[in-house]
Amino acid sequence: MSAEIGLIGLGTMGASLALNIAEKGFDIAVWNRTTEVTREFHAGAGELAARITPTETLEDLVQAIARPRAIILMVPAGPVVDDQIAALRPLLDEGDLIIDAGNANFHDTERRAKAGGFMGIGISGGEEGARHGPSIMGGGASADWDRVAPVLTAIAASAEGQPCATWMGAGGAGHFVKAVHNGIEYADMQMIAEIYGVMRDGLGMSAAQIAEAFRQWNRGPLQSYLIEIAGEVAAAVDADGAPMLDVILDKAGQKGTGRWTAIEAQHLAAPIPVIEAAVMARNVSARLEERRAGEALFGCAPRRLPGSLSLEGLERALIAGKILCYAQGFAMMTEASAQFGWDLPMPEIAKVWRAGCIIRSTMLNDMATALQEDPGRNLMLAPLFIDRLCGTQGDLRETVAECARSGLPLPALSAGLAWFDMMRTARSTANMIQAQRDFFGAHGFERLDGAPGKHGPWAHG
Amino acid sequence: MSAEIGLIGLGTMGASLALNIAEKGFDIAVWNRTTEVTREFHAGAGELAARITPTETLEDLVQAIARPRAIILMVPAGPVVDDQIAALRPLLDEGDLIIDAGNANFHDTERRAKAGGFMGIGISGGEEGARHGPSIMGGGASADWDRVAPVLTAIAASAEGQPCATWMGAGGAGHFVKAVHNGIEYADMQMIAEIYGVMRDGLGMSAAQIAEAFRQWNRGPLQSYLIEIAGEVAAAVDADGAPMLDVILDKAGQKGTGRWTAIEAQHLAAPIPVIEAAVMARNVSARLEERRAGEALFGCAPRRLPGSLSLEGLERALIAGKILCYAQGFAMMTEASAQFGWDLPMPEIAKVWRAGCIIRSTMLNDMATALQEDPGRNLMLAPLFIDRLCGTQGDLRETVAECARSGLPLPALSAGLAWFDMMRTARSTANMIQAQRDFFGAHGFERLDGAPGKHGPWAHG
Repeated sequence: MSAEIGLIGLGTMGASLALNIAEKGFDIAVWNRTTEVTREFHAGAGELAARITPTETLEDLVQAIARPRAIILMVPAGPVVDDQIAALRPLLDEGDLIIDAGNANFHDTERRAKAGGFMGIGISGGEEGARHGPSIMGGGASADWDRVAPVLTAIAASAEGQPCATWMGAGGAGHFVKAVHNGIEYADMQMIAEIYGVMRDGLGMSAAQIAEAFRQWNRGPLQSYLIEIAGEVAAAVDADGAPMLDVILDKAGQKGTGRWTAIEAQHLAAPIPVIEAAVMARNVSARLEERRAGEALFGCAPRRLPGSLSLEGLERALIAGKILCYAQGFAMMTEASAQFGWDLPMPEIAKVWRAGCIIRSTMLNDMATALQEDPGRNLMLAPLFIDRLCGTQGDLRETVAECARSGLPLPALSAGLAWFDMMRTARSTANMIQAQRDFFGAHGFERLDGAPGKHGPWAHG
Repeated sequence: MSAEIGLIGLGTMGASLALNIAEKGFDIAVWNRTTEVTREFHAGAGELAARITPTETLEDLVQAIARPRAIILMVPAGPVVDDQIAALRPLLDEGDLIIDAGNANFHDTERRAKAGGFMGIGISGGEEGARHGPSIMGGGASADWDRVAPVLTAIAASAEGQPCATWMGAGGAGHFVKAVHNGIEYADMQMIAEIYGVMRDGLGMSAAQIAEAFRQWNRGPLQSYLIEIAGEVAAAVDADGAPMLDVILDKAGQKGTGRWTAIEAQHLAAPIPVIEAAVMARNVSARLEERRAGEALFGCAPRRLPGSLSLEGLERALIAGKILCYAQGFAMMTEASAQFGWDLPMPEIAKVWRAGCIIRSTMLNDMATALQEDPGRNLMLAPLFIDRLCGTQGDLRETVAECARSGLPLPALSAGLAWFDMMRTARSTANMIQAQRDFFGAHGFERLDGAPGKHGPWAHG
């Protein structure tokens, strides 16, 4: 029997993906650096074992796959991928294809793709997604994508009857879109955490009451996986009956993909302040000792807000924040598409995120619609979202203002609001910056009336 | 006659620096790629021409300098520096020293320094500073610094009798500190622009009234070059008598050093949200068409604030914002010092910025004092600044809250406030983020009580 596809790396994600592929009816050959892992995986595969060929050497793996071969790598991002490619390449034939399905930095994928016979795909959805239907963002040569699309679309999640697996563009396009996905994931989570804080500290709600609020919101415009599990974790209790949220240390970890997004945005000069604030908040959360010293010196915010924030208002504030965050993320991809010479399919990106991935939500349906109307337009300027922002921005304002006054930190939501207000201000205050730059550095400026005279009267000489 | 030092690159900065060196009594040989520029420079040097040896070839330049030679490069950052080094190296002898005084990315300086005989120094102060006394941040081998220190300290600005020229550490340390300086410069300018906006749009003040406010503030705790020139540009009028600020287009340019700081901060996981907001604001300012579309759809903020912000309150808000911004910048350098194995002299950095550079201010005196007490402590936790923050944070809150409610964007000031509130919150909301990360990715968490059990009850298997 010749397998239709191969897979290297049987960690949590790789194993789940292999089972998913087998379950969809494809014969797959697998290999892991440690043979024992391969054996255990095969032994535990149940009925699916018949479709899975375990192999003990790379040579055996390659021989077990029908030509032209396609081999998925699911190994840790970074040098391990390069090592694996180097080990594999001499064993392969012309036309064989290596598919990096890990969380690669898209610059690495660009570099690796240059050699040909290689594509990088972003996979989101965690273990559960990998096993039963992830969201897949493909990148590489379009002909290569077409070759493996039957497998990838079969294993992907589906939304409204369409598979959540799409080719994004050449080279690192798939991994780039995945990075932005992760940046938005950071931002969604941070905004949820901020609103959770308003409920906990500002309104004095219990974890159970907070759970109920998230559950209710999950039946409205905020419906999404992250709101759903916010409700679940808020409702969960430990063995002693204590709410889980109240026993978990408030130090957020990260694997660095949010940071990549922030760095790329800087290179692109694309403003994504909500994502930046989310990454920043994780970094500050890790500085526990300083935060304790700060509270000892300055006192924390009063435990009840004097104002009149309502749950309905908080829901609307979060809706506004979410729209603004996604508007920034999509605008960043528009910028990247232009600068990297890709042709990122903007509405398809919204569609591929509708199911299978961590940021899946019903709001992405509307975003797909808005991007279909005009893929290059900022989402906050699309009719559908203009209406929603008009109906919710007042609550975002009240929430940010009330918390700023009382001392509850809302870094992401306030960054979203400030960006929105900048984006609706035709006459900003950057004229002051340009005047100062001309004053000390003779950098010059343009005049509003288009008249000549690019330096101020302060210019010497 | 043998010159004591050489200089390559007679653009605005290079020419000013050469005149400064000659004026301080050092004989200097100069060379420019275009000989005509060298001739004109020498012809225009007046009395100083006697101390300046113009040369027409690189060979002549090298021959005109006493051994061991020191040659300053003042050429555009990037590949030009590498080309110049490559052209120069074969003409030099053992022990000769190339000094890159341009705005290099510190990673490039690190790389170039590895070959030896090279140091990178950051120079701030613009043309005026270069001519009459800049702030100099040296990096490289300490012995090399000692060799050229007599020239560099002689030409530098001085503050309280000390020259503003200091060795920061090995390799790229000098250019790194210069990058953070520039990041803070962006942030200072952005916060000034934001408060200018509150005065112009929120309080309906004229440019002349605004000029008066800045002039008054420049006699108080905010005394600084940037506040001084904010007053000057606000007071300036064009040939028709129109206030310059009212005729300058609000599209801020940038040369990218603020962006470098933001990128390095991401790599270091160092939170600098005020600087990030300042870079973001410049990027948004460039999107004039979108901002106009935004205003047409959503309307801009009402031209008068309904609240009761006073000029004194705005001054205090700006003081708080400035302290928070510098606290972030110095904390970033503390982080870099540890991660790169430097031993950045924190109080000396504050001192070297007190004069000659764009961000010079009297407040840097107090920062130097606070950093002398405890160089690793965050400035917001230093007694001197605790007092000041207690006296000003209320006004920062009122300003941010009022403007959030009304729609005047304060991205940098609100980012500073949110960071401050995070830094004084011992129990943050990152527990929600950790719970969600464990839910979908089994990333685990710590418990507040230190008890075992790193996964929630939602963990499957």
